[in-house]
Amino acid sequence: MQAEIISVGTELLLGQVTDTNQVYLSRQMAELGIDVFFRVTVGDNENRIVEVLKTALGRSDIVLCTGGLGPTEDDLTKQAVAQVTGRTMVENLRALEWVEAFFRHRELPMPESNRRQARFPEGASVFPNPVGTAPGAMVFHNGKTIVLLPGPPREVRPMFETYVRPELEKQLGTGRQVLVSRTLKICGLGESALEERIKDLILEQRNPTIAPLAGLGEVRLRLTAKAESTSEARALLELAAQRVYERVGSYIYGEDDQTLEETVVNLLARNGLSLGVAESCTGGLIIDRLTNVPGVSAYLERGVVVYSNRSKHELLGVPVRLIEQYGAVSRQVAEAMATGIRRTAGTDLGLGVTGIAGPTGGSPEKPVGLVYFGLAGKGGTRVFRRVFWGGRVEIKRRAALEALVLLRRYLI
Amino acid sequence: MQAEIISVGTELLLGQVTDTNQVYLSRQMAELGIDVFFRVTVGDNENRIVEVLKTALGRSDIVLCTGGLGPTEDDLTKQAVAQVTGRTMVENLRALEWVEAFFRHRELPMPESNRRQARFPEGASVFPNPVGTAPGAMVFHNGKTIVLLPGPPREVRPMFETYVRPELEKQLGTGRQVLVSRTLKICGLGESALEERIKDLILEQRNPTIAPLAGLGEVRLRLTAKAESTSEARALLELAAQRVYERVGSYIYGEDDQTLEETVVNLLARNGLSLGVAESCTGGLIIDRLTNVPGVSAYLERGVVVYSNRSKHELLGVPVRLIEQYGAVSRQVAEAMATGIRRTAGTDLGLGVTGIAGPTGGSPEKPVGLVYFGLAGKGGTRVFRRVFWGGRVEIKRRAALEALVLLRRYLI
Repeated sequence: MQAEIISVGTELLLGQVTDTNQVYLSRQMAELGIDVFFRVTVGDNENRIVEVLKTALGRSDIVLCTGGLGPTEDDLTKQAVAQVTGRTMVENLRALEWVEAFFRHRELPMPESNRRQARFPEGASVFPNPVGTAPGAMVFHNGKTIVLLPGPPREVRPMFETYVRPELEKQLGTGRQVLVSRTLKICGLGESALEERIKDLILEQRNPTIAPLAGLGEVRLRLTAKAESTSEARALLELAAQRVYERVGSYIYGEDDQTLEETVVNLLARNGLSLGVAESCTGGLIIDRLTNVPGVSAYLERGVVVYSNRSKHELLGVPVRLIEQYGAVSRQVAEAMATGIRRTAGTDLGLGVTGIAGPTGGSPEKPVGLVYFGLAGKGGTRVFRRVFWGGRVEIKRRAALEALVLLRRYLI
Repeated sequence: MQAEIISVGTELLLGQVTDTNQVYLSRQMAELGIDVFFRVTVGDNENRIVEVLKTALGRSDIVLCTGGLGPTEDDLTKQAVAQVTGRTMVENLRALEWVEAFFRHRELPMPESNRRQARFPEGASVFPNPVGTAPGAMVFHNGKTIVLLPGPPREVRPMFETYVRPELEKQLGTGRQVLVSRTLKICGLGESALEERIKDLILEQRNPTIAPLAGLGEVRLRLTAKAESTSEARALLELAAQRVYERVGSYIYGEDDQTLEETVVNLLARNGLSLGVAESCTGGLIIDRLTNVPGVSAYLERGVVVYSNRSKHELLGVPVRLIEQYGAVSRQVAEAMATGIRRTAGTDLGLGVTGIAGPTGGSPEKPVGLVYFGLAGKGGTRVFRRVFWGGRVEIKRRAALEALVLLRRYLI
């Protein structure tokens, strides 16, 4: 079985947007064991979309299209599919109900143009969009399947997972080769340091393959196994994963979609510990990441972002003379912030972070990127010093990540 | 003049690598005023590369290929070009010298396989690779130009800049057209509502073209002008932008790379106003976004993330009976949070946000996604009610965005 991926959108051809859907769908096809031989990008032009669809239907069994399902005049993918498959466009009542419900839920009137989003080639099998207005659809034509997905990646993913993937699995039937991946997520160990520890595994392993992928402040190790069944592939993955865990297990904070903040919140829950957070240079990002985890409110009593010296004093009881003597960015102030938030919030743990995110405010002794982390618990307070690099937003991100790494290490 | 971009590499079709060359080359073409109507990705398979090249030569004047110039057996782009243009492969002595020099310079022996990198279709015009082993080339064939570039983005860029761009500029000659874009960034107005107000402009405008692009909670309006000079293009853009500003100016928060938080911080600075922020459901994200702006510390006195009722009471003075009577997510509590942070922080403005980010905690009267925003200033406090959709993280993001939208509207 062969698939072809078509992205529709002039903004893509102008290079104004990076097309992450093609990568996502390519990976999904690889996991399903479906070959992808061609990917094509075309602009918002009906004739050219038709041309590309015709070529794709001539050489591929499945044609996955993203983009061009919006309510505006330059959203033309559905019309092009109708033309290529010789169908008329009709209003789909189920789709119309979904689009209307979307606006009703938001207590907004539905603009007339959004009715276009409920129009599909006759006979299309439609499915709802859990996070946006554009419903998706499949059109079955001469033994081929055309899949219509919206453009925004955050809409593509849930729709593919819920509606498209099960249908493709049904079409594949049994006896196929499957590709299954498992990702080990590593923090506190750089890419080259990691590679030195597991180089032999990376080189020797053929099935599964092991590939490191560096991200901002973390490394992902992607294990990919090929087998005749998912369970067989999973068994191969488990063996290889065990060998990696033996070498660098203490740096692996989670797998696949698990985030570092989830790990931290789970550890708080398991230990029955509450947390208060006081941030300066990270500006709320640590609290933001922690509050992305459902149920965190049972453990995170409060967070404060204390930019000013006054707020450090008023909300955390940091002595003014301490700030005057050592500076707001200092080991002493980080410690006082940690103990202060622990005391005022009445929590088991207190985290205090102070640093210089830049671009200004640095000095030879205290450069931009210098950050102190205070962690106060029952057994006392520890302070960690780090120097990060990059621009303001990057330093914030690296420092917030390091705070979570330190919290995790404390909790395990 | 039309160009087509072809990426060669099976790793791309497996989704193991994101293809940034396509975005880079698309932008280069836009800047040169060369239309790109198609982009294609194909694997390391000679027959399929041939197929894609034939199609491209049938419809485009310039065919830009990246990838498949390496020393291994699966690097096949040059052979495919030779086949399509009816040429034989020959060893190019200049290219061989460059490849050999690359290894000599690094004091390494040259593997025999790297000789392949000096072989090109007969008559190809070769050029060196300043940062890698694979030389690039251009092949002129029946009035068309095929450009052969390596795969790694850091090799593509210098080669394109140094050798390909000047050649294309020469081909374009004088009197060529440049493409210049300008993006108007809009918040507080949905894509279809926006389009209803400027539909006639979108449909009538040919130069510049006007294209709406929806993002999470905002719409970008991309104006693209074609002209013989950049200054002429800019003048056309200015005229069109003025017409858009006349219709929806109050919703345009910025242009091009300007962020909404920058706009808000600039407005605080211009009005000399300080701000305190109290967040519940948004969990620090509003403060995080504001603190991404350098210099914000002069205006943002503090922020608090008050998840618990106790912290709402202790840090903001929200009366406990108010929370008991109306619930933590209510118009009354949002108002008390806004006035509370304004008072305790001693700032000109106070923003209080309380809502239900989910996935649990919703009810028929107060669904997941319900958020109240309180904004306290000298003239009193206003409360806004909104219902957002999506998952927890998305609701947080939409609510934080709306808070910035409301702040901006208050400040203008």
